Amino acid sequence: MTDAKPKLLLAYSGGLDTSVILKWLSEKGFDVIAFCANVGQHEEDFSAVKAKAESCGATKCVISDLRKEFVDDYVLEAIKCNAIYEGRYLLGTSIARPCIAKEMIRIAHEEGATFIAHGATGKGNDQVRFEMCCQALSPTIQCVAPWRDAEFIESFKGRKDLLAYCNQHQIPVDAKPKANYSIDENLFHTSYESGMLEDAMCPPDESMFKMTVSPQAAPDLPETIRIEFDQGLPVKLTNVTDGTEITDSLELFLYCNTIAGKHGIGRIDIVENRFVGIKSRGVYETPGGTLLRAAHMDLEGITMDREVKRIAEHLSAEFARLCYNGFWFAPEMDLVRYSLDFTQRDVVGVVELELYKGNVTIRGRQSPKALYNADLASMDIEGGGDAFDYNPADANGFIRINAVRLKTYAALRAKDGK
Amino acid sequence: MTDAKPKLLLAYSGGLDTSVILKWLSEKGFDVIAFCANVGQHEEDFSAVKAKAESCGATKCVISDLRKEFVDDYVLEAIKCNAIYEGRYLLGTSIARPCIAKEMIRIAHEEGATFIAHGATGKGNDQVRFEMCCQALSPTIQCVAPWRDAEFIESFKGRKDLLAYCNQHQIPVDAKPKANYSIDENLFHTSYESGMLEDAMCPPDESMFKMTVSPQAAPDLPETIRIEFDQGLPVKLTNVTDGTEITDSLELFLYCNTIAGKHGIGRIDIVENRFVGIKSRGVYETPGGTLLRAAHMDLEGITMDREVKRIAEHLSAEFARLCYNGFWFAPEMDLVRYSLDFTQRDVVGVVELELYKGNVTIRGRQSPKALYNADLASMDIEGGGDAFDYNPADANGFIRINAVRLKTYAALRAKDGK
Amino acid sequence: MTDAKPKLLLAYSGGLDTSVILKWLSEKGFDVIAFCANVGQHEEDFSAVKAKAESCGATKCVISDLRKEFVDDYVLEAIKCNAIYEGRYLLGTSIARPCIAKEMIRIAHEEGATFIAHGATGKGNDQVRFEMCCQALSPTIQCVAPWRDAEFIESFKGRKDLLAYCNQHQIPVDAKPKANYSIDENLFHTSYESGMLEDAMCPPDESMFKMTVSPQAAPDLPETIRIEFDQGLPVKLTNVTDGTEITDSLELFLYCNTIAGKHGIGRIDIVENRFVGIKSRGVYETPGGTLLRAAHMDLEGITMDREVKRIAEHLSAEFARLCYNGFWFAPEMDLVRYSLDFTQRDVVGVVELELYKGNVTIRGRQSPKALYNADLASMDIEGGGDAFDYNPADANGFIRINAVRLKTYAALRAKDGK
Amino acid sequence: MTDAKPKLLLAYSGGLDTSVILKWLSEKGFDVIAFCANVGQHEEDFSAVKAKAESCGATKCVISDLRKEFVDDYVLEAIKCNAIYEGRYLLGTSIARPCIAKEMIRIAHEEGATFIAHGATGKGNDQVRFEMCCQALSPTIQCVAPWRDAEFIESFKGRKDLLAYCNQHQIPVDAKPKANYSIDENLFHTSYESGMLEDAMCPPDESMFKMTVSPQAAPDLPETIRIEFDQGLPVKLTNVTDGTEITDSLELFLYCNTIAGKHGIGRIDIVENRFVGIKSRGVYETPGGTLLRAAHMDLEGITMDREVKRIAEHLSAEFARLCYNGFWFAPEMDLVRYSLDFTQRDVVGVVELELYKGNVTIRGRQSPKALYNADLASMDIEGGGDAFDYNPADANGFIRINAVRLKTYAALRAKDGK
Repeated sequence: MTDAKPKLLLAYSGGLDTSVILKWLSEKGFDVIAFCANVGQHEEDFSAVKAKAESCGATKCVISDLRKEFVDDYVLEAIKCNAIYEGRYLLGTSIARPCIAKEMIRIAHEEGATFIAHGATGKGNDQVRFEMCCQALSPTIQCVAPWRDAEFIESFKGRKDLLAYCNQHQIPVDAKPKANYSIDENLFHTSYESGMLEDAMCPPDESMFKMTVSPQAAPDLPETIRIEFDQGLPVKLTNVTDGTEITDSLELFLYCNTIAGKHGIGRIDIVENRFVGIKSRGVYETPGGTLLRAAHMDLEGITMDREVKRIAEHLSAEFARLCYNGFWFAPEMDLVRYSLDFTQRDVVGVVELELYKGNVTIRGRQSPKALYNADLASMDIEGGGDAFDYNPADANGFIRINAVRLKTYAALRAKDGK
Repeated sequence: MTDAKPKLLLAYSGGLDTSVILKWLSEKGFDVIAFCANVGQHEEDFSAVKAKAESCGATKCVISDLRKEFVDDYVLEAIKCNAIYEGRYLLGTSIARPCIAKEMIRIAHEEGATFIAHGATGKGNDQVRFEMCCQALSPTIQCVAPWRDAEFIESFKGRKDLLAYCNQHQIPVDAKPKANYSIDENLFHTSYESGMLEDAMCPPDESMFKMTVSPQAAPDLPETIRIEFDQGLPVKLTNVTDGTEITDSLELFLYCNTIAGKHGIGRIDIVENRFVGIKSRGVYETPGGTLLRAAHMDLEGITMDREVKRIAEHLSAEFARLCYNGFWFAPEMDLVRYSLDFTQRDVVGVVELELYKGNVTIRGRQSPKALYNADLASMDIEGGGDAFDYNPADANGFIRINAVRLKTYAALRAKDGK
Repeated sequence: MTDAKPKLLLAYSGGLDTSVILKWLSEKGFDVIAFCANVGQHEEDFSAVKAKAESCGATKCVISDLRKEFVDDYVLEAIKCNAIYEGRYLLGTSIARPCIAKEMIRIAHEEGATFIAHGATGKGNDQVRFEMCCQALSPTIQCVAPWRDAEFIESFKGRKDLLAYCNQHQIPVDAKPKANYSIDENLFHTSYESGMLEDAMCPPDESMFKMTVSPQAAPDLPETIRIEFDQGLPVKLTNVTDGTEITDSLELFLYCNTIAGKHGIGRIDIVENRFVGIKSRGVYETPGGTLLRAAHMDLEGITMDREVKRIAEHLSAEFARLCYNGFWFAPEMDLVRYSLDFTQRDVVGVVELELYKGNVTIRGRQSPKALYNADLASMDIEGGGDAFDYNPADANGFIRINAVRLKTYAALRAKDGK
Repeated sequence: MTDAKPKLLLAYSGGLDTSVILKWLSEKGFDVIAFCANVGQHEEDFSAVKAKAESCGATKCVISDLRKEFVDDYVLEAIKCNAIYEGRYLLGTSIARPCIAKEMIRIAHEEGATFIAHGATGKGNDQVRFEMCCQALSPTIQCVAPWRDAEFIESFKGRKDLLAYCNQHQIPVDAKPKANYSIDENLFHTSYESGMLEDAMCPPDESMFKMTVSPQAAPDLPETIRIEFDQGLPVKLTNVTDGTEITDSLELFLYCNTIAGKHGIGRIDIVENRFVGIKSRGVYETPGGTLLRAAHMDLEGITMDREVKRIAEHLSAEFARLCYNGFWFAPEMDLVRYSLDFTQRDVVGVVELELYKGNVTIRGRQSPKALYNADLASMDIEGGGDAFDYNPADANGFIRINAVRLKTYAALRAKDGK
């Protein structure tokens, strides 16, 4: 064991930061294996990433195509839970972390690596999510985060230092200048933050978006699709306009991205609260997810009981917070997901939607498990002999009894002179 | 007192149902005072309503302009609370009921009426909301709901019976045929339900909308506005495109309706859960409210602490449920509103939004009370001497301690063989 | 079928009220089948009940021994969920209603009865619980509640009228005078309310208690028992003092009643909130349940994750409210129970308790699934090589990052001059 | 400024650990000011503490009597909120931390100290609570925690090293041997943990308790007291047995301790979840707090609306978690306390309690603001003309409408074949 270097698996993107980190860790005495997850990044050239990793000193570079797993075990699970953080963010970055971490732990075990490293910064959420997931899956794994390492930080105070290091170590640098914001990409979403976006009054630049056109640039004609769900999961998409039908989950999701992106759907611009206690501004585009979530929520409307919905909304908020904060493999997340699964038993049926210049408009929905009953809700038809109906006169008692507390309270307030 | 008829105040709209009810109650021996609230209904001719009430046998007809009160004490309060029912409905009908009920109780006291009547049906929410509010405000008031009265229901089994009764009693009937859906209108929203809309697969007819054009029919050019808030309330609106400035709350709200309606903003189509346990399908347009809520939520993003937000989201869901179910004057609503007021102390600042074909796009936001600090959130700048910052290395401990439970749980599951 | 009387199943106790009701319903033309559930009432003579039912005109009297089912499917389920209403009431009456209703529906189907009747009053919770359960299990069943029937109420304005009716119809009346409070009994608890107890300042009379002695009258020597749980359910009880061992759930529960009752454990005196919006004062004794709940909660202490506990506490409060209000067979109750089951997977182990004059004192607990680890918690031992531990220095970062929001908020308040 | 030592304020107890720390910090070059808070520790000799501090090298020793402030601003606030952590722990240690921290920050400012130090360990809650409070109150303060300092830990691996250091530096050491557990004391409670108590099966030793006798050792005669509350706070205590009356809050609280301690009230033994993710076993005695909380909750029973109570229970759980975790000066705690204050407006009245061998038995309660109305709740009296009452027949409709959802759900399940 005298001359064996410790093995380290580095989450590698091929970008400037992780290339420098790769070389630096290698110089520090690690046997660095680069890892790159294919979670559906836009136009990523994985063979180029692999070549660059090796040129930076990686003893090996593993590329894993996680797209199917990412869609099935993470993205559609989040949509099934109506997950949304702080009322607006669909968790596109957060949800990819456990998927990537799980694969890295699998590979680390396979390769005998006892260290895992990443290029996430010390102020962000991703370091937390990534390391929490790794530690949950493999309590003995050691996490290395150069951007929290005093020596590394001291050496690389800005982009200039990184470029100088590349020059010194013959690390090829991308010709095009760095964008004035940072990007995270996967098939669920693309996020943009930092740089010019740190000014909360500065709107995003139209040129930066990768998955969506702007509503203005979207077609002038709407398109209509139908999405069929079973137990809360989309199982079939039909483009009513052109007849396309898709059933495979990955293909279906990618098609949603394409069609929603084409119609300018799914952009948001928010200031959100990071787990580390800092607010940050993010711009996100989540075309397919926005579409599917709207359809899923609508189907819940006719199939889910009111009080089940009330409790499910509470659990959905827990899901979002846990996912955002990196607690995917936590015991409470297991509980929340187990519970929400139960609420989806009857979420089956079809929703029809129209897509047009940023708008997802529900056109109709139906379900074999609908709790909605047109006759019951009707204001025109008197309650017939239907056992499930009630007599209008029943409302007298319902109202009077519900008002008992209110009258008692009013009397007390009156006695007080308010 | 032998020959005095009991006085009854009837919520009167001028429509077929309440005209028949007016006459019928009058025939039953009540001294009927008609009441019509101006809560901003679209194109309502209140003098015609008054004339018709009197022709139907009302001893008096009171019209109250509640628009300012409705905006200030109800609509903007709901927006301040981000109120949304079941994730989608902005409560446009619900929120008007306490406002109208309060005025009716005031007038009933003034007029010495001991009965209050309305034309709401026995399957809906409005009967509940209306009577709960009345009973809370005046425990001894007697509520009369003809649509829950066995004799009335027996006499009027359908529209034909109502028309026959009008004919028999010289009640003038509107020439145009009844719409195939029912409408509720106020300045916050217009709702459409029942009739053809009971088929959950039947999309709404474009011709029915009163406050909004469709996104397709909206202008091809976006418009940009700025909304300034103080303590969660909009205090100034500036149309950046044309320079318009408004500060009066009613005018500001009506302007929001106009501009958002012009750009096709704020339509939804849902199946929701009524308090009486029935699901119902509703189509709503809430242009100004949709716009203001988006702006308000965004401003909370930079001014509200994360954990305050978490608790406020819980209270906001309570607010929505209570409002929807008619518990406006309930003790728990007082608590919820008192608490949410506290969360709005620092919700001050300005939000810039672009309106375009159904889309409300946030362009930026700023606040003198922002908890957002670009320097803190930055991934580029190392934590300087700022006392409010932390050192990147601190994240090591933060993550490791947050992971303690996860590792313990993982170990237990591993011992179990999962 | 012309002369067949409609069959009605009456929940019959053998007492004054239900005897009068039996006869009255029979006179009204029903073919009345009496039903009496054995849910472990204290000293009930079921053959006497049966004889009396028949003497009052029942065509049949069915006695069902539901004790085992009641303990297994209801009582222990409530304990597993730590169910407690408004922080104090263990739901002893509420939890019996669905058990009884379920059996009545089963018998009604068997006997072809289309009506079900009960003697609960119109102001209480039991009418609601009973009828809600019946209607959920059999939507077409018709519920008859004489105490809400105008004619019945008019006929029986007080006890005197009931006695006169008995006299007139040769219904035997219990010699001993009516207690000055009403009682509900089952093996889980006995409740006392109304009558003299309506004065919230009047303490209960010592003589009324049936299941417990007072702490003052309890033995001067403590007794020690051990209770073993599996998946949240008690599976074995050992009396450490005398060596008794019990494993059968019904026997175990009854033994808990005996031993806790002997030591004066489980009495409460509260003012609670009924579902119908009224406050009511109740005195309850729940000896075995109090003991088992204390043991169960303690075991959760070492086996349940903190955040799972947090969510489970929320669900437990839902469980209690739903059970109290009669929503046992509601969709949301299915969700809550399904979720709480998951939290009990690891609630296995043993708790040792000492019983003495009203006190249940935990003496210790252990579990093969404990998440408690003495070494981890120790303040004396430095974190060794244990992967599950953290380094004391990690707390620096944990604290500093958790304080970021607080410092930012403090700075804002300071800027405000508070 | 060349030779000025940095000033440091040390939370000093006079015990072994903090005496060593004092000397060690002094040797490290700090100008150490010792601080000792009088929060009502049992039999503490503050002049001896002061003398010892000075003998260990403190340049000054400040003793602050915080007992009144502690009772008024912390202890009674917690009782007002019914605060309880994980259903059992009354937060006796947690609640003292913000009180002590606040005073230390005040003195640090007064003395010009820029450092604050404490002797809390790196695995516990107190370090977190203490430092979070300090940082919230003074963002620039530097916290020094020797038990998390690598050099300090290396030097003092066990008690032996501490004693050797004392010997070497002439620090007097308490003659009596260290207890086999650690203690935290204030007037609200005494806690015992670690040492022999780390074995979760080892019951506490009777000799260790300081504030309570055991139920066995308590008097054979009960004692009756009345506690009067105003807006949720105890304002007068009357010992009915001997006529004692107390109104001063500190005296009243101390009297509660004495009388409850004498009757063996308020001990618990639990395994709880620390904020740092570890479970720990603690034994606590909280005599007066247990008594007052029981009285306060009981008074809420007759004065607080059901739905206000439901929301308040949720907020109370937040309060407990925030207090336990050290978030006393957090924005969300301000919100929670503000909201709970509102719920206490009508919590006024008197509760009578009997104390006997560990038992607090409610004897009765009354309030001028009671929402409890014996007539309304009565099952014997028919609803008269009371406007606040309802007619028994109203329950028909109340039940039928509440059952609508249940019947619909049952029908769906039946269609499914369950």
